[in-house]
Amino acid sequence: MAMFLPTPTKGVVHSMTESSSRRLAFEVSYDGAAFFGFQRQPGFRTVQEELELAWTGFSSEKAVIHGSGRTDSGVHARAQVVHLSTMHQAPAAIAMRAMNAYLPQDLAVTQVAEVAMDFHARHSAKAKHYVYGIAAGPTRPVLARDRVWWLRRKLDVPAMREASHFFLGTHDFAAFAAAGRSTKTSIRRVRSIHLQERRGCLAIHVRGDGFLYRQVRNMVGSLVEVGLNKRDPRWIQAVLKSGDRSRAGQTAPAAGLTMWRVHYPSNPFAPAAASVSYR
Amino acid sequence: MAMFLPTPTKGVVHSMTESSSRRLAFEVSYDGAAFFGFQRQPGFRTVQEELELAWTGFSSEKAVIHGSGRTDSGVHARAQVVHLSTMHQAPAAIAMRAMNAYLPQDLAVTQVAEVAMDFHARHSAKAKHYVYGIAAGPTRPVLARDRVWWLRRKLDVPAMREASHFFLGTHDFAAFAAAGRSTKTSIRRVRSIHLQERRGCLAIHVRGDGFLYRQVRNMVGSLVEVGLNKRDPRWIQAVLKSGDRSRAGQTAPAAGLTMWRVHYPSNPFAPAAASVSYR
Repeated sequence: MAMFLPTPTKGVVHSMTESSSRRLAFEVSYDGAAFFGFQRQPGFRTVQEELELAWTGFSSEKAVIHGSGRTDSGVHARAQVVHLSTMHQAPAAIAMRAMNAYLPQDLAVTQVAEVAMDFHARHSAKAKHYVYGIAAGPTRPVLARDRVWWLRRKLDVPAMREASHFFLGTHDFAAFAAAGRSTKTSIRRVRSIHLQERRGCLAIHVRGDGFLYRQVRNMVGSLVEVGLNKRDPRWIQAVLKSGDRSRAGQTAPAAGLTMWRVHYPSNPFAPAAASVSYR
Repeated sequence: MAMFLPTPTKGVVHSMTESSSRRLAFEVSYDGAAFFGFQRQPGFRTVQEELELAWTGFSSEKAVIHGSGRTDSGVHARAQVVHLSTMHQAPAAIAMRAMNAYLPQDLAVTQVAEVAMDFHARHSAKAKHYVYGIAAGPTRPVLARDRVWWLRRKLDVPAMREASHFFLGTHDFAAFAAAGRSTKTSIRRVRSIHLQERRGCLAIHVRGDGFLYRQVRNMVGSLVEVGLNKRDPRWIQAVLKSGDRSRAGQTAPAAGLTMWRVHYPSNPFAPAAASVSYR
């Protein structure tokens, strides 16, 4: 009788594994301190490599992880987004749990979603949100010391706020781009920039369609020149117009920067989508 | 002529140093992870010892640091308060800067004040405010991992909030006191308890006149039993009434606890007082 026939589970799973490719998107969080940045580099510990190793550990399958963007050595992520293509048929929630079992303490998958094959963590991204943290004052920050830039002097935040407005909109950000990565154009759009003061710390929120290499850290370094009253707020406008990197301020340290969120035309992790979220 | 006489600065300072004792209060912040608690213990790295070593390094004077209370191994402080008596006549602001030059990365003085000789960090304290952080959900916290207790399941926060109300007021907290420290009475007053949810983290704010050894961590451990729906909110009331430590929940881990603030009848660090504040 049919009900006693053993179901050919193994065979079925195997043939599914062979035939149907799918794409998964992950939201990941990492503490950048012990990583040599996001992008794989032989001989160095990187976020991409750890994620690929975790995927292979769980699935015994090689995979390439694509991120929404690279983060430099020391830069943190609250919610970086990555994707991979796979033949593995594990439910998304199981895949996430398995990944986390393989990942180290300073890196975790926080959300997962089954996405369309044309979703691409980098190409589909329409905006990014970064936060830069500063502790300004003669006293060393202790509890936040690995997440902020410590400046020994108070900052003139109203002057910085005034200066920050010059970044808004579409500009050629060549003066705020570090050399080292080729891009077709240095024109970018900054959608918003907010300076938030809370308990002696300053958080600079920057949202834009995309950023040049070290653009956010260079923008922050220049805003700090204004905050220290070494420069007038209008100086930012002049540097922007000059397109000359040598005229901008120093690059703010990596540890203060956190990739906060990546925006897509439709949020792959929204409850309506086939996603599992725990944040 | 008198105006050309060299002023005997050195002599005067020396005689002041010999004669006038004064008291300084410091607000200190520390990351508890690498400390064996606050209280000095030969052979272990403690907050008290580091502060005393810093004072001696700066002043060449031995001093005893008195804290508002001990914190256990692994417990953090945003704003612990300590005092010392000294013959050294350095201005308070200079003393603070000098202390910080001697202190390690995970410990700093954040405020200083010249206080009356009858001010005592512990005896003068009228209330303390602690914050306990919890990350509840299957995903490991990454950026906050050294400051929170990670529970793998969601918590029923409304039930915890209901349960927390039973702690309010004056009670015999014997059921929530760990053995190991003698006190005359286990009656304490909890002034307020607030559960604050923010981005998937739960912060439990507890304010009280004083706390028994591990009382806050034991209260949190029991609230978590309620949050996991293992216990009814009313169970807290029954445990309190029983006075029986074996009936309460587990002790919440040290890393989630932060000494947030110590209150005095008049704030020694208020701008009106002879204080220097940088927070």
